[in-house]
Amino acid sequence: MRQSELFTKTLRENPADEAAINARLLIRAGFIHKLQAGVYTYLPLGLRVLTKIEHIVREEMNAIGPSEMLMPALHPKEMWEKTGRWDSFDALFRLQSKEGSHYALGATHEEVLYSLLTHYIASYNDLPVKVYQIQTKFRDEPRAKSGLLRGREFRMKDLYSFHASDRERDDYYKKVTEAYQRIFERLGLTAVETQATGGTFSDRSLEFQVLSQAGEDTVALCSKCGYAANKELKEGREETCPQCGSGFTEERAIEIGNIFPLKETFARAFGLHFKDEKGKDHVVSAGCYGFGTSRAMGTIVEIHHDEKGIIWPENVAPYQVHLIEIKNQKSKIKNVGDKIYKELTGVGKEVLYDDREAVSAGEKFADADLIGIPTRVVISEATLAQNAAEVKQRNQTNATLVPLKKLR
Amino acid sequence: MRQSELFTKTLRENPADEAAINARLLIRAGFIHKLQAGVYTYLPLGLRVLTKIEHIVREEMNAIGPSEMLMPALHPKEMWEKTGRWDSFDALFRLQSKEGSHYALGATHEEVLYSLLTHYIASYNDLPVKVYQIQTKFRDEPRAKSGLLRGREFRMKDLYSFHASDRERDDYYKKVTEAYQRIFERLGLTAVETQATGGTFSDRSLEFQVLSQAGEDTVALCSKCGYAANKELKEGREETCPQCGSGFTEERAIEIGNIFPLKETFARAFGLHFKDEKGKDHVVSAGCYGFGTSRAMGTIVEIHHDEKGIIWPENVAPYQVHLIEIKNQKSKIKNVGDKIYKELTGVGKEVLYDDREAVSAGEKFADADLIGIPTRVVISEATLAQNAAEVKQRNQTNATLVPLKKLR
Repeated sequence: MRQSELFTKTLRENPADEAAINARLLIRAGFIHKLQAGVYTYLPLGLRVLTKIEHIVREEMNAIGPSEMLMPALHPKEMWEKTGRWDSFDALFRLQSKEGSHYALGATHEEVLYSLLTHYIASYNDLPVKVYQIQTKFRDEPRAKSGLLRGREFRMKDLYSFHASDRERDDYYKKVTEAYQRIFERLGLTAVETQATGGTFSDRSLEFQVLSQAGEDTVALCSKCGYAANKELKEGREETCPQCGSGFTEERAIEIGNIFPLKETFARAFGLHFKDEKGKDHVVSAGCYGFGTSRAMGTIVEIHHDEKGIIWPENVAPYQVHLIEIKNQKSKIKNVGDKIYKELTGVGKEVLYDDREAVSAGEKFADADLIGIPTRVVISEATLAQNAAEVKQRNQTNATLVPLKKLR
Repeated sequence: MRQSELFTKTLRENPADEAAINARLLIRAGFIHKLQAGVYTYLPLGLRVLTKIEHIVREEMNAIGPSEMLMPALHPKEMWEKTGRWDSFDALFRLQSKEGSHYALGATHEEVLYSLLTHYIASYNDLPVKVYQIQTKFRDEPRAKSGLLRGREFRMKDLYSFHASDRERDDYYKKVTEAYQRIFERLGLTAVETQATGGTFSDRSLEFQVLSQAGEDTVALCSKCGYAANKELKEGREETCPQCGSGFTEERAIEIGNIFPLKETFARAFGLHFKDEKGKDHVVSAGCYGFGTSRAMGTIVEIHHDEKGIIWPENVAPYQVHLIEIKNQKSKIKNVGDKIYKELTGVGKEVLYDDREAVSAGEKFADADLIGIPTRVVISEATLAQNAAEVKQRNQTNATLVPLKKLR
């Protein structure tokens, strides 16, 4: 894309109302715009990153078998009353239609999905069922001050699996854990598998925590064997690692993914039973697997930045190459920049081309550092005199001169 | 996909609470599930169709220059008060957070976008700006009885363009019109360009109407010159065509797309001005271009079906090929079906493979007709005896025997 056609502009100053690094950098660089606390617009650059993250999540989900679907955000009150969560789910947004229907705004989708599946699951022959969606969720969070780390409106992948036995469910649980670790690797993140409580969903859960000072969670880590537990779980329990007896250290962390075995209360509330081979009724065994895609975007920025701006990992960068043309007023290099831009995009590279007139070299470099595209390619009178471009990686300090012919 | 792994099942009977053909067929065939009036889940087959429609829309939008972004659904009340639409927009859902913030649920995005662009547009140099999104919208519709044709929660593409002059805006208007006609062609639909009123947005609009008995609009069509006007606009005016003087006929129609020049009231409400080359202030000229993607899905079914089920046009079909294996109990053809399935998917065909055991040939054929995939490929003992498969197009009556080797 030509930067001259990008309507967003970078900001030199931090926005006054944002304390979180991810929000400050993403806003300044033109990836997101704050509409109100916990609610952001994904601007063109930001939507490219979010789409890439969600594409990676989708690929890794599809590899372990579930079908993708899309459930609504407007849920009937009656379904949330069946599980008791109309009253007990604190962060639920509630609204009413003119004709008097009461709705919950989708904060999670167990109610809708269990109700749906009663139409399709009756026998062991109908199991297992594995479905997921990637979608906008709504939660009335009292504290929404961490940028993309805690939104009132945010993006999430939620996978649900339904099985004839807990054992089969636990096997699938392992498959999802492996898929999650592949996702984190592709996103340029490292996640600690953390034992945790289950909240309203479950008795226990496994959280995927990325260690970061920006995190709202505290994880107790055993330095010896790698065991990790959410501090909520550890509270009031042993002060030493249950696996090896060593001591713990505590670290702040961001919970991006989680895996829950779902309580039977959901299946009982909706009557999600199945008949086994002998015609005997059983409650379906289920698991729920969340992954915050917009939270992952914020976390990547918290982990990958420096004092100048964002440093996107290759797989999620909005563009792979930031082509920058530097010229003085009499320069005739315009055609060269256009030509290289066409060549690079012609061979499939994703290029942001800073073709802006009347913007100084210093400003262009500062913008490039702030936006954080992995590879910067600069052409100027000086480099062109040598038939070359200056190439620099965002995460390195040294630039090298590369012949124009080898740029591809 | 193997049909044995699809958790949805077809229904022989029409759902009792749906009168619209699109809802009846889409529910019976397992494309959507009704959560409540005007609110549907897109099941795996349905999400594939919706995604294909939205991919076509995205491609045709990208071809005319705008950037894609994603705006939120939770809008601050204050923005809707600025335009007076907090009170005047009938179908607006309103809600409140626990801490007392009032929100509108995104029914359309002029308020959010105009407010956003005041941060980025100041000079004629910043224009034009063209942005779009493909996204879920919410409207408190009093009558939501037409399946996907009128939802309380529905999917829509909305494009907005901002220009330094009405003339430039009107030029872009033409480009969008052409892009819309390309979209309709790719979707297998024919749209009549219809003059209409502008509602709360505008003084006038151009609607893209697909003629159908299921439509909620009435279009007055000049049979001689092709001029068309929405009956709302014609009401109380001349009884003959303003272009050629001929008489009108009236037809029911479904409005899938529309194009509005936006009233200046929006720009004035948010102060969206720009300075020209002489430093003089002007109000931005703007256009708004909607296209209902979920409504398009419903319309395709209204237009393309017969008494047996849906007949998907190739471009939006959930799969291209429905491979059906017919066998009796002693049959050994299983491996042949699996082999053909792998071969077809191996060369990039999208295949739904009916590998279900214990389902009769008659049921499989009825399901295939209901689901409506364009090409049906049947293998049975009889066809395999001739080293062939029976191939039939959904929109034709005759089948032909095709050698297995030529199936690709």
